[in-house]
Amino acid sequence: MSTILTGDRPTGPLHLGHYVGSLKQRVKLQSDNEQFIIIADQQALTDNATNPGKVRANITEVALDYLAVGIDPTKSTIFIQSLVPELSELMMYYLNLVTVARLQRNPTVKDEIKQRGFTDSLPAGFLVYPVSQAADITAFKADLVPVGEDQVPVIEQTIEIVRRFNTVYHTEVLVEPKALLSKVSRLPGTDGQGKMSKSVGNVISLKDSADEIRNKVKNMYTDPGHLRVEDPGKVEGNPVFAYLDAFDPDEQGLAELKEQYQAGGLGDTKVKERLVEILLAELDPIRKRREAAAQDMAAVNQMLQDGTVKARAVAGATLTQVRAAMQLDYF
Amino acid sequence: MSTILTGDRPTGPLHLGHYVGSLKQRVKLQSDNEQFIIIADQQALTDNATNPGKVRANITEVALDYLAVGIDPTKSTIFIQSLVPELSELMMYYLNLVTVARLQRNPTVKDEIKQRGFTDSLPAGFLVYPVSQAADITAFKADLVPVGEDQVPVIEQTIEIVRRFNTVYHTEVLVEPKALLSKVSRLPGTDGQGKMSKSVGNVISLKDSADEIRNKVKNMYTDPGHLRVEDPGKVEGNPVFAYLDAFDPDEQGLAELKEQYQAGGLGDTKVKERLVEILLAELDPIRKRREAAAQDMAAVNQMLQDGTVKARAVAGATLTQVRAAMQLDYF
Repeated sequence: MSTILTGDRPTGPLHLGHYVGSLKQRVKLQSDNEQFIIIADQQALTDNATNPGKVRANITEVALDYLAVGIDPTKSTIFIQSLVPELSELMMYYLNLVTVARLQRNPTVKDEIKQRGFTDSLPAGFLVYPVSQAADITAFKADLVPVGEDQVPVIEQTIEIVRRFNTVYHTEVLVEPKALLSKVSRLPGTDGQGKMSKSVGNVISLKDSADEIRNKVKNMYTDPGHLRVEDPGKVEGNPVFAYLDAFDPDEQGLAELKEQYQAGGLGDTKVKERLVEILLAELDPIRKRREAAAQDMAAVNQMLQDGTVKARAVAGATLTQVRAAMQLDYF
Repeated sequence: MSTILTGDRPTGPLHLGHYVGSLKQRVKLQSDNEQFIIIADQQALTDNATNPGKVRANITEVALDYLAVGIDPTKSTIFIQSLVPELSELMMYYLNLVTVARLQRNPTVKDEIKQRGFTDSLPAGFLVYPVSQAADITAFKADLVPVGEDQVPVIEQTIEIVRRFNTVYHTEVLVEPKALLSKVSRLPGTDGQGKMSKSVGNVISLKDSADEIRNKVKNMYTDPGHLRVEDPGKVEGNPVFAYLDAFDPDEQGLAELKEQYQAGGLGDTKVKERLVEILLAELDPIRKRREAAAQDMAAVNQMLQDGTVKARAVAGATLTQVRAAMQLDYF
């Protein structure tokens, strides 16, 4: 049994990329592990400080998405980051154990700074967010953290902080996490351009209606060289087939479909119809569970409050040990 | 009536420099103002992370120094920074409103980085300590912050954060502080080299015994050109006279003494004897009050705990307003 920390930044409703990349895995992992799921509102604010309404609104969206996909609050502890102040205090101590130079060299942060076009405008909070993540991970003594390939340097940063803390303060209080790398390849956006991104608008959300799904699939990018039905088409770089790879339960049938498409004689419309059918089958029960949960928002809020109480207890116990190791255990 | 935030980093017992530069002023200010005095253990850790024992040990030293000089816990609220977790959380939010570039340009921080020989080894916590100070100041809605000239940029940083916060979150929750500049010129070290510094060892501590004071004054640097009693001596850059300026209640007598010294015919020993007498008169009652307070450490600890409870209540109220302004007021 492992202790897992995972979660999301509440910056938008969750989409198929989250579902394939992490949500499905969480549903599996929650049975045999102690799983903490953080709704990271404070981390969302590191690059959304001027848009707190967006963060606020998406806390509930994300919580509903969790319930919709089958995350079970009796098995997983779902909580809101900013309601666990122990995490801020841990970050404050860890900040002294990390150099500015090391943070600036972090490949994940470097990439994200580039993506966001931060140069002189880089907020201090964004530069140090890996330290905040180290606080989140270590507060729960998580030994397993599911991540995508691009987030591995953030886990390495946490491991460094753990080692340094334990060495400097002659303790074994903090636990080194391991990255649990997703085996699923990343789902591209519906435009075939890189990954799904709310800001780009190439996303199928878990809460999309059947009509929205049909429409988005209909407008999906395919092989631009595949002009007529009889032309041979490309499967690589074709997001329709990437989605089929991720969702089609009939491997054999899909392999035949790909052969036919590549040989020529299979139109995009046909393939897209198949994808729509498969997505609706997968997403219909999710959407229904979501709608049912949304009927009782008081219960959703109570679930978040209960999770937060549990999370605080665990993080508080760790903080007490951390403070003792640092000789901050006054009185 | 103003609300004042002031305090010290617990990295050593307080000395004459603190006494002249701030402690005496605090004793005056506490009668007509709401004064919060922070023992800034977390800030001390930003450049003492590997030496937590030093910070720990000096919490009580500093508290005793406060009581010794006449800071009255029924008038001033003395508290320990790390026991007010609201301050860490405020810092976390403010970090998003300050750029890394701005922190790197802060003249105070730049100087201190140079002094400490940080280059690639600069801890992130040290770079961002002005943001932590902004949290301390604003948590208590302090409108007056006593500082030395060299700390003015840190207050400016706080003012910037206050303005940005209030603008971004459409609120007037945070209060802009004013710097209360010390009118007393800074007391030099006993070696005449720059300011008093525990690490340099050129310090007369408030808790020094009469013998230690005699000894330290005896070994004080004077005018190196003043070799024989009959030689004319220099008063400028002569720490013995700087101390007399700060402590001698007899202005007229001191002016005459200086004249005599400059003309020649007055030996260092004579002047030092006078300084010893004056310092003992000033420090004897302080030392006695310190020793009396140290007899009952349980009461000192209780005083710190009471102060911390009061500080948390005030900081907590501010944090609630801050969270509401940021739309983090869930449930």
